[in-house]
Amino acid sequence: MAQDEFEVISKYFRRSTEDPGVLLGIGDDAAVVNSTSPIAITTDTLVSGVHFPSGISGDVVGHRLLAANLSDLAAMGAKPRWCTLAMTLEEIDEQWLSGFSSGFFNLAEKYDVSVIGGDLTRGPLTVTAQLFGICEEDYVLTRSGGKVGDEIYVTGSLGDSAAGLSIIDDLDVSDEKLFLKNRFLRPVPRVEEGVALRGMASAAIDISDGLLADLGHICNASGCGAVIDLEKIPLSKELCSLYPVEEAHTFALSGGEDFELCFTAPPSKRSAIKEAFKNLDTNAYLVGKLDGQQGLICRREGIPFEPISKGYLHFT
Amino acid sequence: MAQDEFEVISKYFRRSTEDPGVLLGIGDDAAVVNSTSPIAITTDTLVSGVHFPSGISGDVVGHRLLAANLSDLAAMGAKPRWCTLAMTLEEIDEQWLSGFSSGFFNLAEKYDVSVIGGDLTRGPLTVTAQLFGICEEDYVLTRSGGKVGDEIYVTGSLGDSAAGLSIIDDLDVSDEKLFLKNRFLRPVPRVEEGVALRGMASAAIDISDGLLADLGHICNASGCGAVIDLEKIPLSKELCSLYPVEEAHTFALSGGEDFELCFTAPPSKRSAIKEAFKNLDTNAYLVGKLDGQQGLICRREGIPFEPISKGYLHFT
Repeated sequence: MAQDEFEVISKYFRRSTEDPGVLLGIGDDAAVVNSTSPIAITTDTLVSGVHFPSGISGDVVGHRLLAANLSDLAAMGAKPRWCTLAMTLEEIDEQWLSGFSSGFFNLAEKYDVSVIGGDLTRGPLTVTAQLFGICEEDYVLTRSGGKVGDEIYVTGSLGDSAAGLSIIDDLDVSDEKLFLKNRFLRPVPRVEEGVALRGMASAAIDISDGLLADLGHICNASGCGAVIDLEKIPLSKELCSLYPVEEAHTFALSGGEDFELCFTAPPSKRSAIKEAFKNLDTNAYLVGKLDGQQGLICRREGIPFEPISKGYLHFT
Repeated sequence: MAQDEFEVISKYFRRSTEDPGVLLGIGDDAAVVNSTSPIAITTDTLVSGVHFPSGISGDVVGHRLLAANLSDLAAMGAKPRWCTLAMTLEEIDEQWLSGFSSGFFNLAEKYDVSVIGGDLTRGPLTVTAQLFGICEEDYVLTRSGGKVGDEIYVTGSLGDSAAGLSIIDDLDVSDEKLFLKNRFLRPVPRVEEGVALRGMASAAIDISDGLLADLGHICNASGCGAVIDLEKIPLSKELCSLYPVEEAHTFALSGGEDFELCFTAPPSKRSAIKEAFKNLDTNAYLVGKLDGQQGLICRREGIPFEPISKGYLHFT
């Protein structure tokens, strides 16, 4: 049994790495890394009872924590590489830790992410990961590169995660409900998709607060407005089978935590994007266009309307 | 008034930076930095009610959080450069945030540290900083470089912080008590001292869990034992004026959170070290020697003895 923080780190978090960029890993006052290319750095915190139900298994928390950070790097077109973990635990619960560790490392190994350091403290359950990815020498994908006339794309299907969370305690194990719950519990970060967008996308963001809120960030950063067409937004058949279309659209527009990508690209890149996504896990769906107006306009069958909710804010 | 997380970030955490290594700062899915030299990365979390009394001012928390991380980089001989902040707040308390921000940035500006990103979430008060520092191309100071025969040094004075914490609610405002409390509340990280040790020290660590525990880490990592002489350990006159010498030594050996440096160096570097510390805020005190035995021996007037407590463990 792990008795203290040093044993916990050694048992659940220290894994060997063959990454030549890791000059010093876990076990000193700091890790040391080396890269000749620019490094993208992101950090995300999950709080028990806020970002996940407090009784949920460690496995899910480990997966979601890394997935959320991977999703941020994907939106930068960065290739994930290193990670640190700052974990605050109420107690040493080995079952939970063992689950967390496997949920986390299953995903980490898939993308060759090495854990290089962290901090372990006692307190209310809160987990923070910091992820480092490598960018191309002369191309960083940001939120601010969108231009009037660029087309707006999203990956995957939207709204599933928020719908899944809304039925998380539902004991019904129909395939549709399990699918939606799983989209909340085990989101798939669009890592390869983000790297594939290099040189094609003008701007990108990951959808964590809902399409309206996140596309709004691209608009603000790029100094554009946008028009999106509701009927073009990709919805899963599972979401459509369980909810009336208006409710499904509300989940898709403002539900959040989809961890899909929203990106923009000039019309000239349309066929290159189609080609690039042929070999990937998901399609890219054209849902609208950046324009010179202020703000974001949603259209249903060509007619503008006012969406019910605009997205997730932590303190309102 | 700041209404949501975006306004909080913009009001209290977004500051301009002129650092040419910051290609992208706060406001995108990730920050992007560039460095041709190796980067040291450390992270430290402070939890309300665990690492600081829950009613304490934001100013103190902001200072301590950055100081703890700066201290880790100092022990690597790294020059601090960038920082990210993952903050979990119960509510938007503008007085607390304003204090946190000034405590944090006063120290950040002193060492030219730029805040490049972070995450803001709702939940029990927990603050995590991740600090990045630049190492020399071909020299990284670690815990593992100590050799049998190397001498052991500590900076500053030990035990003040633990003593200060033990009287934190004491209303007596004598100079001595205020000094000790301040050593806990506003520790001074030994940043310049760490950089000065480049090329001289064989191993280093910052004293966060108490001298015995932290010197023990150097011994384990370096495959050595150590002997330290109690009467050589630097104690402040304030600590000695308030506590009997045995109690003062217990604070010094196992009290923790001093954020002083403990380092080793071959005897041939003795005069160079003395010279280097002439222009710095603190002296380096020779307190013992690495030897070929296993474990750590404390001597009082040359006679070995067993210390009462060995240091701070988070979960025992």
